[in-house]
Amino acid sequence: MRRLGLIGCGRIGRVHALSISRNPDCTLSKVYDPSLANASQIADRDGATVAASADELIRSSDVDAVIIASPTNMHKEHFLAAARAGKPIYGEKPIDVDLERAAATILELRREGIPIMLGLNRRYDRDHATLRSELHAGSIGRVQSMQLASRGPDSAPTPEYIRSSGGFYRDKCVHFLDLIRWISGDEAVEIAAMGSVVADPHVGEHGDIDTAAIIVRLKSGALAHIDNARRATHGYDDRIEVFGTGGMIESSRLRRGNVTRIIGTSMQLDGLTQTPFERYGETYAAALGAFLDLIEGKPGQYPTMEDGFIAQAMAEAAILSAEQGRTVKLADITDRFRSGADAILS
Amino acid sequence: MRRLGLIGCGRIGRVHALSISRNPDCTLSKVYDPSLANASQIADRDGATVAASADELIRSSDVDAVIIASPTNMHKEHFLAAARAGKPIYGEKPIDVDLERAAATILELRREGIPIMLGLNRRYDRDHATLRSELHAGSIGRVQSMQLASRGPDSAPTPEYIRSSGGFYRDKCVHFLDLIRWISGDEAVEIAAMGSVVADPHVGEHGDIDTAAIIVRLKSGALAHIDNARRATHGYDDRIEVFGTGGMIESSRLRRGNVTRIIGTSMQLDGLTQTPFERYGETYAAALGAFLDLIEGKPGQYPTMEDGFIAQAMAEAAILSAEQGRTVKLADITDRFRSGADAILS
Amino acid sequence: MRRLGLIGCGRIGRVHALSISRNPDCTLSKVYDPSLANASQIADRDGATVAASADELIRSSDVDAVIIASPTNMHKEHFLAAARAGKPIYGEKPIDVDLERAAATILELRREGIPIMLGLNRRYDRDHATLRSELHAGSIGRVQSMQLASRGPDSAPTPEYIRSSGGFYRDKCVHFLDLIRWISGDEAVEIAAMGSVVADPHVGEHGDIDTAAIIVRLKSGALAHIDNARRATHGYDDRIEVFGTGGMIESSRLRRGNVTRIIGTSMQLDGLTQTPFERYGETYAAALGAFLDLIEGKPGQYPTMEDGFIAQAMAEAAILSAEQGRTVKLADITDRFRSGADAILS
Amino acid sequence: MRRLGLIGCGRIGRVHALSISRNPDCTLSKVYDPSLANASQIADRDGATVAASADELIRSSDVDAVIIASPTNMHKEHFLAAARAGKPIYGEKPIDVDLERAAATILELRREGIPIMLGLNRRYDRDHATLRSELHAGSIGRVQSMQLASRGPDSAPTPEYIRSSGGFYRDKCVHFLDLIRWISGDEAVEIAAMGSVVADPHVGEHGDIDTAAIIVRLKSGALAHIDNARRATHGYDDRIEVFGTGGMIESSRLRRGNVTRIIGTSMQLDGLTQTPFERYGETYAAALGAFLDLIEGKPGQYPTMEDGFIAQAMAEAAILSAEQGRTVKLADITDRFRSGADAILS
Repeated sequence: MRRLGLIGCGRIGRVHALSISRNPDCTLSKVYDPSLANASQIADRDGATVAASADELIRSSDVDAVIIASPTNMHKEHFLAAARAGKPIYGEKPIDVDLERAAATILELRREGIPIMLGLNRRYDRDHATLRSELHAGSIGRVQSMQLASRGPDSAPTPEYIRSSGGFYRDKCVHFLDLIRWISGDEAVEIAAMGSVVADPHVGEHGDIDTAAIIVRLKSGALAHIDNARRATHGYDDRIEVFGTGGMIESSRLRRGNVTRIIGTSMQLDGLTQTPFERYGETYAAALGAFLDLIEGKPGQYPTMEDGFIAQAMAEAAILSAEQGRTVKLADITDRFRSGADAILS
Repeated sequence: MRRLGLIGCGRIGRVHALSISRNPDCTLSKVYDPSLANASQIADRDGATVAASADELIRSSDVDAVIIASPTNMHKEHFLAAARAGKPIYGEKPIDVDLERAAATILELRREGIPIMLGLNRRYDRDHATLRSELHAGSIGRVQSMQLASRGPDSAPTPEYIRSSGGFYRDKCVHFLDLIRWISGDEAVEIAAMGSVVADPHVGEHGDIDTAAIIVRLKSGALAHIDNARRATHGYDDRIEVFGTGGMIESSRLRRGNVTRIIGTSMQLDGLTQTPFERYGETYAAALGAFLDLIEGKPGQYPTMEDGFIAQAMAEAAILSAEQGRTVKLADITDRFRSGADAILS
Repeated sequence: MRRLGLIGCGRIGRVHALSISRNPDCTLSKVYDPSLANASQIADRDGATVAASADELIRSSDVDAVIIASPTNMHKEHFLAAARAGKPIYGEKPIDVDLERAAATILELRREGIPIMLGLNRRYDRDHATLRSELHAGSIGRVQSMQLASRGPDSAPTPEYIRSSGGFYRDKCVHFLDLIRWISGDEAVEIAAMGSVVADPHVGEHGDIDTAAIIVRLKSGALAHIDNARRATHGYDDRIEVFGTGGMIESSRLRRGNVTRIIGTSMQLDGLTQTPFERYGETYAAALGAFLDLIEGKPGQYPTMEDGFIAQAMAEAAILSAEQGRTVKLADITDRFRSGADAILS
Repeated sequence: MRRLGLIGCGRIGRVHALSISRNPDCTLSKVYDPSLANASQIADRDGATVAASADELIRSSDVDAVIIASPTNMHKEHFLAAARAGKPIYGEKPIDVDLERAAATILELRREGIPIMLGLNRRYDRDHATLRSELHAGSIGRVQSMQLASRGPDSAPTPEYIRSSGGFYRDKCVHFLDLIRWISGDEAVEIAAMGSVVADPHVGEHGDIDTAAIIVRLKSGALAHIDNARRATHGYDDRIEVFGTGGMIESSRLRRGNVTRIIGTSMQLDGLTQTPFERYGETYAAALGAFLDLIEGKPGQYPTMEDGFIAQAMAEAAILSAEQGRTVKLADITDRFRSGADAILS
């Protein structure tokens, strides 16, 4: 029974607490959040105690491993503190929105040698995982093209959120850039991107976009499309399709029910789930299970810091492409992290 | 926070315990099962104590209300004991497989005047409930015909199970006979049925059937079909369709995932969930929530003992029809329960 | 190049003319209809000549074979005249609405020894045929139950139509009673039926029903459901499902397009085709092709007069069951046609 | 009754002949093909006469309008000859694979002032047209992104075909570049493209690609994806999706039947149609009908030479983008055709 400490009791922290409460192999022993109210709410419900600081939580003898769900700008500090205390970490991405600082932090974290798993939770979507495992089993031959569409949910980002998230490519597209690698088992070679403001002028006023189109060439020659939008009025619209030399496979949109009506000349099915949590809520539980396996030393494909780093680098390449109107080779971004004492990528 | 006692810690009892553990408005305080191992397993996990007998559990001051999940032949005794102790009851159907004894027991239970809810859990299926509420809202006009198909899961019943369950009509079809009433809001007038042994000869050797076809005429003139089979090798195949004067509405089969492949000349979707619990597991949680509402005195449509009784009577009519090769009027079964001191049905 | 004569230039006659005009292996040489306008309309478009009478058409040396699409009460006369003239016949069902007269006519027609094919055109539906051939190939094991639903189109029958058609069981249900035999490759043993008037009171006022529920036991023990309604406001709603010991197979509703929208919380697909001809129009062309094969003497499974007769007998059994409130053995209807000089059924 | 002449009796010419034979408002009077056998085959079946040359056909007094289905490198000559003879033209695209020559030819053709319709037949797909008309009616708000996927059929192009077609962007992608404009009602601003050889090395050996990924920015800011592949082993896989500020709408893949099986843990639907003609065959008939309307002077949105020219220019921009690794502004290609005496685009 692993005793877990949770740093950050906001929206995503509450999701982790729920997963912990339903997992028979771990308990939530300590929580910390700058807001005592947030921390107490979880602690009271789940029988945990509230730590006075992240540091106190990390050093507590009641905490075997740490879940880091703090604001992005605190990730680096919390990752490093937990690693130095020898506590295994399951932390939200990114380690740092700045690629250089992320690289430097990864090097430091590596030196501590403790198990670290990055919260690339979409990898734990049941249907995405089915798609990937069948693809890797050869069911549709070699990958020829991929489509990753994700739009929604229906909520406008605040100016603060736009700023702290690093913008749409770094915040949302990065998930799908990671999924391209994870699903294909291949690496990106070059990237072309266009961004646009179509639905939410205020997003543009704050220097961001609400619509992104990205194409990625992989080493094998396969070409992947990302079609991402910040908002969708018709629910949380997520779809991944892989077309191969032997067929196609799709992880389809998730509908919120299974009722069909035929009335007049129309057939009406239940529409999409409305929030990402309806689709991806279960991935947090699955990812938690994987983290417990990682602590146990079980072999497996855990999302690494390096996975997070490469996805970030791909997002930077997309940003560069959109800004400069050219196809950007990923190597232009990553070459300086490939060799020498500071090699993140081998 | 209601403290619940659970009588019966077998397969269905464990489902109730799980629902209780996930419901923030109740706790499991006491459990009882003739098998101490079964009882302890649940008690240990959920922080309950084990009672030495059903009676001890029922009389315990730690128990505000009782969940009865004991074997069918014990239902009558446990319902009566709990009612006499003044404890609200959420109990599995039927109160007794024998219609006369069930009627007599209902009369006794009524005299105690405590809240009783029968476990007609399929009424709490999300999609069935959507279908019903849209139908009642008039979305497809008046009901003209209904189809209720249910086949599976893929497991052969033991001879003991066949015997104690009262046979296929009383055990499985009864759920769908109830759903006809609940969904349509209408009452059965007459019933014709055929039973057959197609897939499992051993079911026939024990005097039961594995395939039932039932048609029911409702007061409104609407005609309902039940197409039930004990086993299905392709999963748990459950579907309800209502055809009305203004369209049709269907609560569709439940598929176990949302991955689509197109390979060669075939499009392959994920198939059905394999067990009833994958479909109906959530209904137990919803039914528990309804039971807590009932205890609170909140108005609502709770499945009553009388609902269970009428469904049983419909099953008896189906059995009679199949045996005698004639259309049976439900009144032939129920008239003697309609008036006088022993009136179950008004 | 077969030269065909068409008797009857009404709605169904026009469908046959269209099939002929598109079939490269035959031409329409002569047409006849009591309405010269009807006959001329087809003749002018398709380069045929108008015969002054059915007899003239049948005896014409330009006519190699005869399509009979006259009113039902003329079928017997036209079948006999064509058979006596030695002309192969493709004729609409039934040979006579009266079972005795139909039997007598079949015996007479048999004596002429010419090829006769009955227009049981639903057997030529592409999807129904796929279902049947896969079923017969063993894809889902042995048949356990069947569902045949057909509702629509959205048009009220005239009193004249109700009278001349022989009523709903004989007019519509008979198609699905035939499909049960054709799809299953099995024979009916007993039938229970209920009829109702739900949507169209005027149908009831003319002594007919608008909703039928029929269950049929087959020799193998399989049980089949027919759920038929005269009208459907949501299009022409036709569906056949077979459940077997190894899975299920369905010939699904036919939708009129392949556009999907997700708007708000609803997913909206194109609804059903609105008329039987949108679904079954193509079956006439396929049946015509089969008829040309029959004339050529090619082996095949052509719908016979006896097929039509058995379906009629099943409809009579359903009518008897509904009237008398009992399960009717098909043998009660057909035994007198089974032996001796007048044996229709061997 | 329009009398049509058909130049070119190959694969596509035969499709046009079939459409003409089924259209009651026109007849095929004359055909020409360098292969007398090809020409005679159609002429014999459809009652047309064979012309000794394209010129003879064009000048024939039996020919009211001309269908040009000759090889691409003959289009220019045949368009000009027909236009000079004052005969309305329905001609296959492109007018010339070379953009300059196409522009010059368009200017010449314009001077003749006769009705000309270009064979952008995918615009006549029933489902694509439904999507477009609902989109233009405002059903999903403003366009935010589009996805146009088309892969297949399963046939390898010959080296000759690769050469004469101008390559994959000019041959296949051009259809979808046109559909972007037609569906959105918007114009392209810039284009980024990547091409790849994944499935068919021999395509690469002949200097072409088998996989293309294109993104297009429209004036409104909307971003469109094209995902095209030459071959697909799973059928002809065509899909268009538009995501808007008020929902999404899709013209889905076309399946070849409506049979569903559930066997074991898999649900198996009929797969895709196997050839483009199964999907787009009907569009030729619809386009022919439009052409007859155009001759009549009926107002409508007929695909113009300029439409074809812009789609070609978009394909050239995609080729340039893929070659040079940069986002190409469409104006870089088209500016020289925008003004002065040689203005193709106003």
